[in-house]
Amino acid sequence: MKFTINRTGFTNELANVLRAISSKTTIPILTGVKLVVTDDQLVLTGSNSDITIQSTLAASEGQLGLVVEEPGAIVLQARLFNEIVKKLPAETVTLEVKTGFLTTITSGPAEFKINGQDANNYPKLPELESDKTVQLAPDLLREVIDQTRIAVSKQESRPILTGIHVLLAQDQLTAIATDSHRLAQRKVTLPAPVAAAADVVIPGVSMTELARMIPDQKDPIDLLIAENQVLFKFGHTLFYSRLLEGKYPDTSRLIPETSETDLTIDANVLLAAISRASLLSHQGRNNVVKLTIDPTQELVKISGDSADVGNVEEELQFDAITGQELAISFNPDYMGDALKSFGEVKVKLAFTSPLRPFTLVPVDDQANFVQLITPVRTF
Amino acid sequence: MKFTINRTGFTNELANVLRAISSKTTIPILTGVKLVVTDDQLVLTGSNSDITIQSTLAASEGQLGLVVEEPGAIVLQARLFNEIVKKLPAETVTLEVKTGFLTTITSGPAEFKINGQDANNYPKLPELESDKTVQLAPDLLREVIDQTRIAVSKQESRPILTGIHVLLAQDQLTAIATDSHRLAQRKVTLPAPVAAAADVVIPGVSMTELARMIPDQKDPIDLLIAENQVLFKFGHTLFYSRLLEGKYPDTSRLIPETSETDLTIDANVLLAAISRASLLSHQGRNNVVKLTIDPTQELVKISGDSADVGNVEEELQFDAITGQELAISFNPDYMGDALKSFGEVKVKLAFTSPLRPFTLVPVDDQANFVQLITPVRTF
Repeated sequence: MKFTINRTGFTNELANVLRAISSKTTIPILTGVKLVVTDDQLVLTGSNSDITIQSTLAASEGQLGLVVEEPGAIVLQARLFNEIVKKLPAETVTLEVKTGFLTTITSGPAEFKINGQDANNYPKLPELESDKTVQLAPDLLREVIDQTRIAVSKQESRPILTGIHVLLAQDQLTAIATDSHRLAQRKVTLPAPVAAAADVVIPGVSMTELARMIPDQKDPIDLLIAENQVLFKFGHTLFYSRLLEGKYPDTSRLIPETSETDLTIDANVLLAAISRASLLSHQGRNNVVKLTIDPTQELVKISGDSADVGNVEEELQFDAITGQELAISFNPDYMGDALKSFGEVKVKLAFTSPLRPFTLVPVDDQANFVQLITPVRTF
Repeated sequence: MKFTINRTGFTNELANVLRAISSKTTIPILTGVKLVVTDDQLVLTGSNSDITIQSTLAASEGQLGLVVEEPGAIVLQARLFNEIVKKLPAETVTLEVKTGFLTTITSGPAEFKINGQDANNYPKLPELESDKTVQLAPDLLREVIDQTRIAVSKQESRPILTGIHVLLAQDQLTAIATDSHRLAQRKVTLPAPVAAAADVVIPGVSMTELARMIPDQKDPIDLLIAENQVLFKFGHTLFYSRLLEGKYPDTSRLIPETSETDLTIDANVLLAAISRASLLSHQGRNNVVKLTIDPTQELVKISGDSADVGNVEEELQFDAITGQELAISFNPDYMGDALKSFGEVKVKLAFTSPLRPFTLVPVDDQANFVQLITPVRTF
């Protein structure tokens, strides 16, 4: 195996593939990155067995400067190899494996010789075949992930809740996450109906990693759903994630359809007050903040306290209140996460009673995006 | 106690004082910040008993907007109070203590009530009197600290070596640090001779914290050395540090006066090669890199290896070699720290033998700044 490549482009693609590689794996060879060189391309693969990322660098892409002298394959310790490539002195880097697995890395006057591993021992990637495909705009996909992943469960006690429930039906994609204390649901209308419906649960950590990698570009991302894997294609990159097994709970009836008290308010105004109140709630034993809505007095108030430390109270500017008087307590961190997912818009909060879950929706798009939070009983 | 102040300026000074405050103190009241308000100023004090930082905000400084309604004093939990002030909604903040120690913090619609502590229980600051004073340019002081603190010992086994040895004599300030494996010495010529000589050891952590705080300004910093404290004055700030007790070892004869092999090289060129070689030395058991100098062949080479992982070799561009052939091994991290302390200049390395300490000096200022490193025996 022998090839030369421009260091900058190579470093970038290597960094992408590295996102899948963990040093805490039970399969030692997965701490390595696999390089496979054929006559016209170099393919980098990294995997933690849940996520696999593959990057293809073609010789035909001039700016990569890929020149293959001899095809071949090797697995190199990913962290070390990445550090070496980043610190090399010259514009280009040459990799050569003569016999065995000893790999020579040359760049300018610097010459590293590091021990690699047999690429034949690297796990094979699944070949995905599926008619469940859909194209998504990169910005929209990132938004859907960021708006739902906050509600993904971090507890392993119910593994299925550590995923995002993704449904494809006709011209609609629905993403849902819940940790049983809160729920996030986002619907997206697709440019065209899908060929086949799909109902899968993708691990939340995979989606979070994917959201970080999605490039700032206009070209749509291809999503392909197979039996136990999902594949996202963008740029040079293939991003595979395994799917979670099991049935996601039916969440369709959790979202209340009526309300007794409604509050319309600037998301940022509420977020700032919540984050102040949480300074005290975080000091106490139970992390709870209280919201008081009084339609008669036209008053909205946030308060928090911690017996030892002190208390805080703040009256809020709002746009509208309708319905009944209400005092409700909730976890300010859940509320903060939900409010951040809306960005700088007006939101409508809809409450039925102090002990029933309440919802937040953006005023301008009430049908497609909802955050639901279960209150905390404080008496 | 009651006063109002602009939040921005207050936040900045509070952040400075907070640098001295640790949550891991054995004296509970030191987790607090002391506020003392008199008719014309507010004084903030934070301390971890080694370092004390005091900031004085005067009502006469218009941009601070300090308005005192009632003098008084209080101690408030520093981390919480700082978080609160940072997150308050309005431009100004009002603090009021009516009776007892319950403090009301008001800013716009937000009102916090937090429990404070009696300021009379806060440790008193020493009153320093001394004729050992000197003025230093802020940039120069920061440079002296950054160039010597790298050699300060991190081991508590010889406490005196955890400090920087500072000597004042006539028109010269000398700063020395050594952890017994390496030594850094910097001399500075003062604008005027000092009134009285001084010989003190200032804790390295104090100096590191001070270097971070030194503002980007031209006004000189006053240094005042008393019996067991040192005081730096700049801007609104007084920075006190205790001194280390005990006698600093005589380091004057450690620096060799002659050499057998000299190498002149760009500090950055050597640093880059060292940092590449250390990628492999860090993988192995003994973290050692080898430098080979061959005057006959006009060759300078850096190499490193780790039995399991591989090896690296690099020939370096240099300016001049004189003297004998040499192969010497050393800790690349010590060498890296030393090289970084020079910045982008040419340095001269002077060696006597593979087992004797060697020196690095900047080519343009060989008398005032030296880094010394003890090599590692590898056979």
